Order: sequence, then structure tokens, then C-alpha cells
Amino acid sequence: MTSDAVTSERATPDIHPLLRDRRSSRIFDPGHVVTETDLVRLLEAARWAPSAGNSQPWAYLVARRGEPAHDRMVSRLSRGTAAWAPQAGALVLTLHRAGHDEDPSMAYSDYAAYDLGQAVAYLTVQAQSLGLHVHQFAGFDHVAMAAEFAVPPAWSVTTGLAVGRRPALTDDAEAGLLARDRVPRERKPLADFVFTDGYGDPRWP
Amino acid sequence: MTSDAVTSERATPDIHPLLRDRRSSRIFDPGHVVTETDLVRLLEAARWAPSAGNSQPWAYLVARRGEPAHDRMVSRLSRGTAAWAPQAGALVLTLHRAGHDEDPSMAYSDYAAYDLGQAVAYLTVQAQSLGLHVHQFAGFDHVAMAAEFAVPPAWSVTTGLAVGRRPALTDDAEAGLLARDRVPRERKPLADFVFTDGYGDPRWP
Repeated sequence: MTSDAVTSERATPDIHPLLRDRRSSRIFDPGHVVTETDLVRLLEAARWAPSAGNSQPWAYLVARRGEPAHDRMVSRLSRGTAAWAPQAGALVLTLHRAGHDEDPSMAYSDYAAYDLGQAVAYLTVQAQSLGLHVHQFAGFDHVAMAAEFAVPPAWSVTTGLAVGRRPALTDDAEAGLLARDRVPRERKPLADFVFTDGYGDPRWP
Repeated sequence: MTSDAVTSERATPDIHPLLRDRRSSRIFDPGHVVTETDLVRLLEAARWAPSAGNSQPWAYLVARRGEPAHDRMVSRLSRGTAAWAPQAGALVLTLHRAGHDEDPSMAYSDYAAYDLGQAVAYLTVQAQSLGLHVHQFAGFDHVAMAAEFAVPPAWSVTTGLAVGRRPALTDDAEAGLLARDRVPRERKPLADFVFTDGYGDPRWP
């Protein structure tokens, strides 16, 4: 793929504004409080996502900044993630069911991680509609995090979500930070991954 | 979980209408045409989903009813899925990158299936905004489907999506079919899967 084949968001086409305008910010207002009502709405959105056979193979650990569980989550973040995620109003750890309760080594479903991804996507769309930002991360010690929160062996801690609001920027340093955060998003062109007659044969060359 | 702990959609709370009103219909208008423009919009929505490190570990095989590729997809569906999915205006097979091109047995990412799920969720939200329905399915011969479309070993055919529109129902038989299709959706209560201090300890008991 040549670099000019990558399309930046300047060319983002006609898709729903909630999808078009979402982006993953690393800059959060450290004073912003995510209300409990908004947290419920976010988790309700995730709850109503579709899943294979309506198996709902997901779970979440939720903590707002200042809660003891939040401190415990932060203590297990990688240094890179710990530099920005704790400023968000809430952290959410996402889990999918990887095995059976009776025999965690026996795979539960080929679709559990996929279904968790769907549910998280619904949560991010809901967040966007509430004026909140979500930045997903995987930079944490997965084994230690599972132990910290007594996650059973049949369940897999998958990603973390930082949920919050952008700060109102007041000085030049912050403005520079925000500008770097707003570098245009890039994606592969449709011709790279949408096929019809066979893999690699673009529907829209 | 007792049956009265399961909440039906009558109690669906205050979430965005695109998420609240989505449902998986098995009833499609066999005369409805999904326009090529709408197909592009659906795939663009999937394209702009977030993914781990912006890896975009997804691909799609897309065919509208009447296209040769559609017949080839239908020929690999299970009997149960073949009873309803072909009536939809389009079928989409979703793929995630499971391994590396050089060594397909080496796992590509812990998040590829999860990321594909996110992208499909964006597609379903976009569909909802266009007045289209998406019903996901896994009832097909995954090995034969991969061979049929020359899918490389590093890629995994994951789910299928039937995309279309509900028919305008004109007789009682169709109305009965639709009524059965509209049975209230059910989900586990939040107390079953949203925790804070530890797995199994509900945030909202």
C-alpha cells in the first residue's frame, strides 16, 4: 500500500455524524466528572448490542476517578498508558468469556471477542452522542489486572476504555498538545479490504 | 439468573435511538435492492471504526442478490441460514486477520476479532441510519467458504451479514411471521455483568 493510497479523514464520506466525528483522544479534562447516569447509559448501550445466539459474552469493571477501584486499575497500567488514561473521568475494563466455567480451557465461542468488540463499539457511539470521548487501550498487565479484580479463569480481561471529556484549553502549550492529538485519522482505502469475486479482488478498485 | 432478572426491550432505557431501535430481522423484502451507494456507506462506516494500533485487521466479501458471488455464498450456507438470508438485498462475509502472511500459524493480534466486531457494529449503526436491517449469522461452512473465495490462510472468515429491508406486509401470514420476528429482545441485567470492586460484585445491584 503506497502512502497516497491511505485516505485521511479530510476525505471522510457521507456516514452518520456519530461515526464520522468520533476519534480517540488522549487528552482528558482531569476535573471532568462522568456522571453515574451517563455511565449507566454507556453500559446500557453495550448491553443492547447483538451477540452470537444472544450469548452476551461480556462483562465490565467500571470505576470513576477517585474511587478505590480506579486507583487499583491505575496501579496496573503500563507506564505509557498511565501517562494519560487516569485523567479521564472513568476507566472501564472490558472482559469477554473465553472458556466455560466448568472447564476454562475449553473455548466458549468463536465469537466472544468479536461480540465484545461490538458491545464496546455501541458504548463508544453512545459516548459520542453524550459528548464524551472514549480512548481504548491495551497497555496494562493483563494477568495482574485479572488477579487484582478476582476475574475467574473462564473470563479474559481484554481492553481498557478511558472515558471523559476534552479540556477547555487555555494556554498555548495545551493548544499545541491538542493540535497533535488532532492529526487527521487515516485508514486503508476500501479497495484494500472490500472484495466480491475473491479475496484481493476489489469491489471498488 | 432467574427469568424475571432478564429485562425485555419494553424496559430499554435512554440510549441513542440508532442503538435502541436496532434489531436483527430474519425477514427481508426479496425485491428490495440495496443500492451500491448504500453499500459504500456501510463499508465506509466499518472502515472508520477504531482498532488496536489502527491495525484495521478486517476485510469483507460483498455481494448483492443476483450477482454471481451471491450465488456462490448462498451455496455454502447451512440449511437454516439458507432459509432466510438469501432474501436480503446483500450478503457480506466478514474476515479478520488471524495470522501473519509469512506464518499464518503465528497469531497476528489479540484484538483482531474484537476489532472486526467493532467495525461490524459501526456498519450496523450506519445501516440503521439508512433504514436498513442487518442480521448476522455464522451458519455456513467456514472452510468451504474460505476456499470458495480464495481467502489466504492468515485470514479467518468470521461471520456473515444479511443486509436488507423489511417487506411491506400485505397478508395475514406475513403479519404473523413478522409478529414472531418482533418478539421483545432480552438481555441480562446490568447487575450480572457490570462490576467495580471485583468480578461478580455489581456496581448497580
